[in-house]
Amino acid sequence: MACAPTPPTNAVPAPPALDEFQRIARFYAPLAAGAPGAAGLKDDAAVVTPTPGHEIVVTADALIEGVHFRSEDPPDLVARKMLRVNLSDLAAKGARPFGYLMTTALPVRCGDDWVERFAAGLARDQAEYGVSLLGGDSVATPGPIALSVTALGELPAGTAVRRGGARPGDAVLVTGTIGDGALGLLALGGALPALDAAACDRLADRYLLPQPRTRTGPALRGIARAMMDVSDGLVADLGHIAETSGVGAVIERDRVPLSPAARAAVVADPACWEAVLGGGDDYELLLTAAPDDPRLDAVRALGVPVTAIGRVVAGAGVAVLDAAGRPVPIARTGYRHL
Amino acid sequence: MACAPTPPTNAVPAPPALDEFQRIARFYAPLAAGAPGAAGLKDDAAVVTPTPGHEIVVTADALIEGVHFRSEDPPDLVARKMLRVNLSDLAAKGARPFGYLMTTALPVRCGDDWVERFAAGLARDQAEYGVSLLGGDSVATPGPIALSVTALGELPAGTAVRRGGARPGDAVLVTGTIGDGALGLLALGGALPALDAAACDRLADRYLLPQPRTRTGPALRGIARAMMDVSDGLVADLGHIAETSGVGAVIERDRVPLSPAARAAVVADPACWEAVLGGGDDYELLLTAAPDDPRLDAVRALGVPVTAIGRVVAGAGVAVLDAAGRPVPIARTGYRHL
Repeated sequence: MACAPTPPTNAVPAPPALDEFQRIARFYAPLAAGAPGAAGLKDDAAVVTPTPGHEIVVTADALIEGVHFRSEDPPDLVARKMLRVNLSDLAAKGARPFGYLMTTALPVRCGDDWVERFAAGLARDQAEYGVSLLGGDSVATPGPIALSVTALGELPAGTAVRRGGARPGDAVLVTGTIGDGALGLLALGGALPALDAAACDRLADRYLLPQPRTRTGPALRGIARAMMDVSDGLVADLGHIAETSGVGAVIERDRVPLSPAARAAVVADPACWEAVLGGGDDYELLLTAAPDDPRLDAVRALGVPVTAIGRVVAGAGVAVLDAAGRPVPIARTGYRHL
Repeated sequence: MACAPTPPTNAVPAPPALDEFQRIARFYAPLAAGAPGAAGLKDDAAVVTPTPGHEIVVTADALIEGVHFRSEDPPDLVARKMLRVNLSDLAAKGARPFGYLMTTALPVRCGDDWVERFAAGLARDQAEYGVSLLGGDSVATPGPIALSVTALGELPAGTAVRRGGARPGDAVLVTGTIGDGALGLLALGGALPALDAAACDRLADRYLLPQPRTRTGPALRGIARAMMDVSDGLVADLGHIAETSGVGAVIERDRVPLSPAARAAVVADPACWEAVLGGGDDYELLLTAAPDDPRLDAVRALGVPVTAIGRVVAGAGVAVLDAAGRPVPIARTGYRHL
């Protein structure tokens, strides 16, 4: 359900909307029940008490209607994707998420029903991921919906996995499967006619509802030498790791793990490799580690595959090689939203 | 300087704008130089290391162009007010601020020049208040400018001052002077014709650039039993403390500290009391404490007045009394933006 358009003037008037205080009390305060430091969202600020010996990891994202999500996207899915994208960033540092702050700027066409469904999505994923709403702000806007989330996690002091730790000889690995998000966006636009409806739905689900690797990420602390999540696209994001680490990297295209639906897409149209490698919205973890680190088996036992797809080399930049070892040109090296 | 309107098609084309990555690198990364955990804004998340034995205090606000600030407001002042409003929330809990995350959603009409001036305002107040940019997100929007800030501070564990600690018999106190912000907004709109230009300018300055009490707030830990900052308006905000604490409160109107410009305004037009008591945007601290607590003298020695204006009573609600002890009706009990 999108925010309803402004009703025609002869329509039955809507019931009086709740004001911002009432919306916070009814829809958002219950989301803070699990965090005593949030004081029921009735204070100026929340108090966060880190576990002794731990550090806080914090990340923020903005989402704009028409840029990062579509006006017709269901509000509960918008909420869940917003939260999951941020949890993915925390997982990529190895942090365990515990809470988030959120600011929402909503146009008047977003009625209480929209907010209720939005909050229901948050509630569902709070339970899924063990996080609580800690605070935020709820304001009106004459423009499109504007959302911002700051997510907080923690980890033992000194154990955060950064982008800059890759070294020549490391293996390059990814969790899960790559390309589903970008192909899902194509599927939603009807651009994958060769795929059956079930495959299109599976890809679209991955675009609409990423699966942040919140258990696998913390398990990779001490194993991953560099890590980030794949949001801009596999090649672009490996480029970020390479640049920050002062190294180069090689991806063997045919080792990149694909879901059955993504496999069907690239078989039907090899041009889909471009979306797989250069698209984005995967929200899988991309990491480097010692080749064949035996500790990876325990990480894989958590249930999410961790697949080696290439190696770190001296130099700079990212090369993609086909099965014959020939370079594959990649036109899109960074995802640009919608 | 407001964001420039879209130039006419026969205008000289502007130089190519920086993309989001370039804007972050040029304008925002320098703002993170003081925070090693921010990794130069080149990572998915920042690492925050609390002082041992301390807790983190965190607060978030959203600001929308046309709602919370005017399109014609200078971008450096918008940035500074945005930051200061959040630092005020931290001060109201007794926390020392150390950093912030920020998301900006900007329309294309906001060119690099706008961002440069916005960042210059942040840099100036970072130096003023000892805070660093820790992370965030920079996105495009088809709508009005949408800003969101999450500010972080810290304090010794267990010392945060909450809204709920007021008890009957407490004194009610405020820092600084009250009413300048709301009167400043009136002055900017030309609604205070009886005041001279200098007085109008002083009030407008207080509206455009609040003075968060970042030194006084932490000094009030252990003294203040309940505290918040005055943003919605003195009466409304004391109402928040009263409601959360389960008490009532009385304000003696003539003890409310006024700046010379505000004094002139209420002398010229007693209706201005309405803006003083019911307006907002003061960003002073409002607290309750034991009557005549001798430790308040050391707090006052920091340079910001702390003035008793009333008392906490059993019951509920907030009454304002004039010099003769008669109730003063207050129509506006909560500030509504612009």
